Amino acid sequence: MSNYYHPIEFSSNVVALAGRTKEKVSELAARYRVENSFEDWRKLVADPKVEVVDDCAPPFLHHDPSVAAAELGKHIVCEKPLARNAAEAKSMLDTAEKHHVKHMTAFNYRFVPAIAFAKKIIEDGRLGKIHYFRGSYLNTNDGFNRPTFPLTWHFQKETAGHGALGDLGSHAADLARFLVGEVDAVSGASTTFVGERSLKKGSIEKDKVDVDDLSVACLRFRNGALGSLEAGWTTSGVTDYLAFEVYGSEGSVKFNLERMTELQLSLPDDRNPDASGFRTVYVLGRDHEYMIPFWVNQAGGFSWEHTFVNELHHFARCIREDEDVEPRGATFYDGWRNCLILDAVVKSSETGKWISLPS
Amino acid sequence: MSNYYHPIEFSSNVVALAGRTKEKVSELAARYRVENSFEDWRKLVADPKVEVVDDCAPPFLHHDPSVAAAELGKHIVCEKPLARNAAEAKSMLDTAEKHHVKHMTAFNYRFVPAIAFAKKIIEDGRLGKIHYFRGSYLNTNDGFNRPTFPLTWHFQKETAGHGALGDLGSHAADLARFLVGEVDAVSGASTTFVGERSLKKGSIEKDKVDVDDLSVACLRFRNGALGSLEAGWTTSGVTDYLAFEVYGSEGSVKFNLERMTELQLSLPDDRNPDASGFRTVYVLGRDHEYMIPFWVNQAGGFSWEHTFVNELHHFARCIREDEDVEPRGATFYDGWRNCLILDAVVKSSETGKWISLPS
Amino acid sequence: MSNYYHPIEFSSNVVALAGRTKEKVSELAARYRVENSFEDWRKLVADPKVEVVDDCAPPFLHHDPSVAAAELGKHIVCEKPLARNAAEAKSMLDTAEKHHVKHMTAFNYRFVPAIAFAKKIIEDGRLGKIHYFRGSYLNTNDGFNRPTFPLTWHFQKETAGHGALGDLGSHAADLARFLVGEVDAVSGASTTFVGERSLKKGSIEKDKVDVDDLSVACLRFRNGALGSLEAGWTTSGVTDYLAFEVYGSEGSVKFNLERMTELQLSLPDDRNPDASGFRTVYVLGRDHEYMIPFWVNQAGGFSWEHTFVNELHHFARCIREDEDVEPRGATFYDGWRNCLILDAVVKSSETGKWISLPS
Amino acid sequence: MSNYYHPIEFSSNVVALAGRTKEKVSELAARYRVENSFEDWRKLVADPKVEVVDDCAPPFLHHDPSVAAAELGKHIVCEKPLARNAAEAKSMLDTAEKHHVKHMTAFNYRFVPAIAFAKKIIEDGRLGKIHYFRGSYLNTNDGFNRPTFPLTWHFQKETAGHGALGDLGSHAADLARFLVGEVDAVSGASTTFVGERSLKKGSIEKDKVDVDDLSVACLRFRNGALGSLEAGWTTSGVTDYLAFEVYGSEGSVKFNLERMTELQLSLPDDRNPDASGFRTVYVLGRDHEYMIPFWVNQAGGFSWEHTFVNELHHFARCIREDEDVEPRGATFYDGWRNCLILDAVVKSSETGKWISLPS
Repeated sequence: MSNYYHPIEFSSNVVALAGRTKEKVSELAARYRVENSFEDWRKLVADPKVEVVDDCAPPFLHHDPSVAAAELGKHIVCEKPLARNAAEAKSMLDTAEKHHVKHMTAFNYRFVPAIAFAKKIIEDGRLGKIHYFRGSYLNTNDGFNRPTFPLTWHFQKETAGHGALGDLGSHAADLARFLVGEVDAVSGASTTFVGERSLKKGSIEKDKVDVDDLSVACLRFRNGALGSLEAGWTTSGVTDYLAFEVYGSEGSVKFNLERMTELQLSLPDDRNPDASGFRTVYVLGRDHEYMIPFWVNQAGGFSWEHTFVNELHHFARCIREDEDVEPRGATFYDGWRNCLILDAVVKSSETGKWISLPS
Repeated sequence: MSNYYHPIEFSSNVVALAGRTKEKVSELAARYRVENSFEDWRKLVADPKVEVVDDCAPPFLHHDPSVAAAELGKHIVCEKPLARNAAEAKSMLDTAEKHHVKHMTAFNYRFVPAIAFAKKIIEDGRLGKIHYFRGSYLNTNDGFNRPTFPLTWHFQKETAGHGALGDLGSHAADLARFLVGEVDAVSGASTTFVGERSLKKGSIEKDKVDVDDLSVACLRFRNGALGSLEAGWTTSGVTDYLAFEVYGSEGSVKFNLERMTELQLSLPDDRNPDASGFRTVYVLGRDHEYMIPFWVNQAGGFSWEHTFVNELHHFARCIREDEDVEPRGATFYDGWRNCLILDAVVKSSETGKWISLPS
Repeated sequence: MSNYYHPIEFSSNVVALAGRTKEKVSELAARYRVENSFEDWRKLVADPKVEVVDDCAPPFLHHDPSVAAAELGKHIVCEKPLARNAAEAKSMLDTAEKHHVKHMTAFNYRFVPAIAFAKKIIEDGRLGKIHYFRGSYLNTNDGFNRPTFPLTWHFQKETAGHGALGDLGSHAADLARFLVGEVDAVSGASTTFVGERSLKKGSIEKDKVDVDDLSVACLRFRNGALGSLEAGWTTSGVTDYLAFEVYGSEGSVKFNLERMTELQLSLPDDRNPDASGFRTVYVLGRDHEYMIPFWVNQAGGFSWEHTFVNELHHFARCIREDEDVEPRGATFYDGWRNCLILDAVVKSSETGKWISLPS
Repeated sequence: MSNYYHPIEFSSNVVALAGRTKEKVSELAARYRVENSFEDWRKLVADPKVEVVDDCAPPFLHHDPSVAAAELGKHIVCEKPLARNAAEAKSMLDTAEKHHVKHMTAFNYRFVPAIAFAKKIIEDGRLGKIHYFRGSYLNTNDGFNRPTFPLTWHFQKETAGHGALGDLGSHAADLARFLVGEVDAVSGASTTFVGERSLKKGSIEKDKVDVDDLSVACLRFRNGALGSLEAGWTTSGVTDYLAFEVYGSEGSVKFNLERMTELQLSLPDDRNPDASGFRTVYVLGRDHEYMIPFWVNQAGGFSWEHTFVNELHHFARCIREDEDVEPRGATFYDGWRNCLILDAVVKSSETGKWISLPS
């Protein structure tokens, strides 16, 4: 496994782009020398040169393109959250499985070396039995905390499915499952502090925001661990605070995306019983997978864009070698389970009940 | 208010001690030159020289001594959590109010200068409208995470009321109310990872642990904010991790007892728009209340023991000047509301429902 | 050694105070119930009830009282730096040794548990051979960085000997010797950014500042290690930044007084070769000496005032048990070697040469 | 200036590679589709298709290729330190200037957004008058601290000029000049803890190490500020610790490459006089130059490789637009002044004197 990312000499080509606005998509295609560009995603999906569809559109444009692509036998990477709700996600999963295409939900943070290393530490049992997980993603997205920020697709259920919960919380919920395991039950609360927004910046005309801008939840994992989730756009002061803490019977680990190359690790160290404490580990060296394709042991040797390089490299390799996308990457199954958690937070908030997830 | 703690020349004398074991309590009284010592707390409460009772016993010994003291017109400080459950706490509150004695629940962290300063920042509106509070208290108490740690009064409902939730979570719940306001509803989960413990260290004979060693909860505040609480004994690696984060529409604040003299503050700073970020503020100077009686502007100029000095000084002053214990300190009212939250976490965990608190 | 601080049942009484101003010293004596108070330190030294003299005056009042006390056979604790220059310090040392009194230079930071623990780690060889030491003490002393801060005894050679170098740098220089060993040679630079100050706050009349407000030096240790020292009053932004880093062939340690209970430790850990990194160790537990007399394993369980309690307890114990003040504490020998370093920084700055210290 | 990096549509092509080993250089050329590859750098320099030479060889291969390139009218980027000593560097500078070619010393850290921002803060006067600079670069380079690490070109004067001082200290010395200004005088000490190394890993045959593996220095800046420099390979525990602190009369700034996207800033903030403290600023947003070509406001949106992209983009742009390489980038003049500092540290160490630099 440590050799997983040794250079494999193959390359992927972007052969077509689709976008709503003719000028923009043409200009982009020209700049990056992409052969075809379409205003209708259906044409892209149908283009015989396209073997893999990468759906980076908002959630309301996840289901139909994915289903169409699967039916044509094309592999699909789809942005997170996988869909506006679990029902849509389940339909996408079923179609992809029926047509035996490779499918991946683009949870890119699984491909941060420090997070992959945290998973390894947990799987190796070095933290003992896992007792508690806390996952947070608080990010004002450069202005979502301000009431003057205008309405975009993020703020309505029709286009986004969920608000901060979908945009941010879905990442934390994926890491919960990635690191600790399946979630069985959820209670939570969602709220909306900024209830309406201008249609355009500065305009008087406003429309209703009908998704959360702050959500919090308690989790029960199948293995007995407890957990919590937090997602918020209206938490001023944060930068890009995707953080988790995992506590076990023997040790624990903390991560914060704001310091992406670091892991805080408390491990049993019986040789230094007088010197226990969280150690700051830079997960960067040649020995950590995911780093091999990049510059090596420099403190700043990994950044956000590389999560995508790793992610797409993984998917390309899975297609080429016919390997499993998971557990390294998230499949549509993971995307569906993820949607179940998001939906349950809202349902618990509305019904005042703990929500059990289907097994 | 900034002059609140200017030296007031009065002193309090410890005139009596009570403890179960004759030798220990006598020895302690001798060492500290305390006039009287008793094996029966009733005698201490009845001692005419005693004007104020400070109840440092476990929760099962809170209700009766407090009620007895109040009925004799004596002022009472009682350790936290105020009682094993909200019903006991309510009885203590009612008796104290009926007899017009001063009453304080010993939530000593209200008297940390950094926390008092956080409260001031929030009350002054410098964080804007408060949206979110997270409060954690994770502490292995030097061994509670290990199954080999023997049974003490902490581990059974009869003596403790709650487990980690009462011992640790009560502090986080008090800070929630202190900093953000009244809590209206709670959902949560409690669990017990170490289900039985030896009666003595190393012995084979074991008894059941019937309180939580890990709890998590979601909160709805009356003012619309959301929150979460975490309390755990079985979270290996932590030292004394009583931490909170409070997010508002304009700024936010973070605190961790492990760095007791620091506050992380994000404040609007329109003069340095290119340099926003959490600032590490050492809350130590002469200008911060609570520090006046102590050594001044040295980085390490405040420590744990001083929280108690501040707390008891405050109570003594309230008695002498006939001032209100709250909002600076916590009363039995706060102790009762606190118990309502703790009880609700367990009830939510058992019933699978959000629990509304009485108003 | 781990039992060193187990309670020893003895107490010290303050029997006399001396100060320039009659009213102030009388008031202080009254408040703390001290029997005698004098305006002339000679009377205090001669008072037959005085067995130990604690000289907390500025450097120009160190030599004569210490010599007088030693000649009367009284033990002496003297504030740091021991004197205005090495010649004065040598005279104090010689007199104290001639009269066989116990003598201590009040380098209180030797009594911080985290620093004592760093010393132990180094002495145990856990960092390997020591290669490098950096010691800094940057502190604006609540206003020394501002040109409007008026002249006090700190700012002239006649009264202080050195400026930031003596007030702050002496601590860093003592830690260099305490942790790494004897210093053989020094080069450095001293400067004065604020060259004159008002005689009183706001007054027009000014006088010259003839000591440094910023100094930096390179050190050669006898054991081959290199080092650096920094001391500054004119370094805006710092709080109480007494920090050191010690690097060895196997590991390293970092300390900052602003986080007084923490040590950053990098130790060889061959069981976790993939998880090396600085660990944050809270030096607080029952197992760490110096903590035994205080509250136990709470994160904030040690503060600045406790350094003095430890220091004076140590000196009292050395007198009572006739034990050596060093290496735990600093003697007048250490105070003299310390002055040699300070003097050498200034001499190097003036002469443009590396200065060798006498052996 | 904020528009400096708006996309300029031009691209640079790598047209030739040179390397000692035929197979390696051919393979590399094939992988990256480079037209020509040579074993002799002279051929590369003479290749008429080559307009710009990028010299990434060790210091002993800096002078001759640079001089040859300049004489052929080709622009040159040369790795740091610019040469083995100031005399070589001066010759390179003179030749480049004589032939009017663009020349850059590859001090890539000038192109870290956080460092560029620190420079801006200083130039804008927001820290007041600069008093003190400390620059450190401690990095074990994945094993240089271990005596078993074999001899490479880094360890001998003939090939490297200097040891840790050249490899690491040159960066810190460049930042001193970049951020604070010209250096006038230097004192320092250099040492070598590992005095000989195996010719190959594990072999018995050894050769002498005749460069430093640890150096420390004091600096006098022309503007009156003082400074210090540290460079070390034998400081176990560090990761990639290129750190600086700059203190002024009004504020200060701290940086550590291990947290490359962060700046610690203390700025005067008269609106929050009770909340002063170092703020952690993520220098990442769209408003910070150097970030425009990259992914935007994500915490991890900049890494080590991007310093080179910025650096080479800058040089390409200076050539195309005929603009000045400095002050944004370092020229050969800067490379020469840098070598003067490095040489002075060694000379001071050998002669026991402060060394004045030529003006």
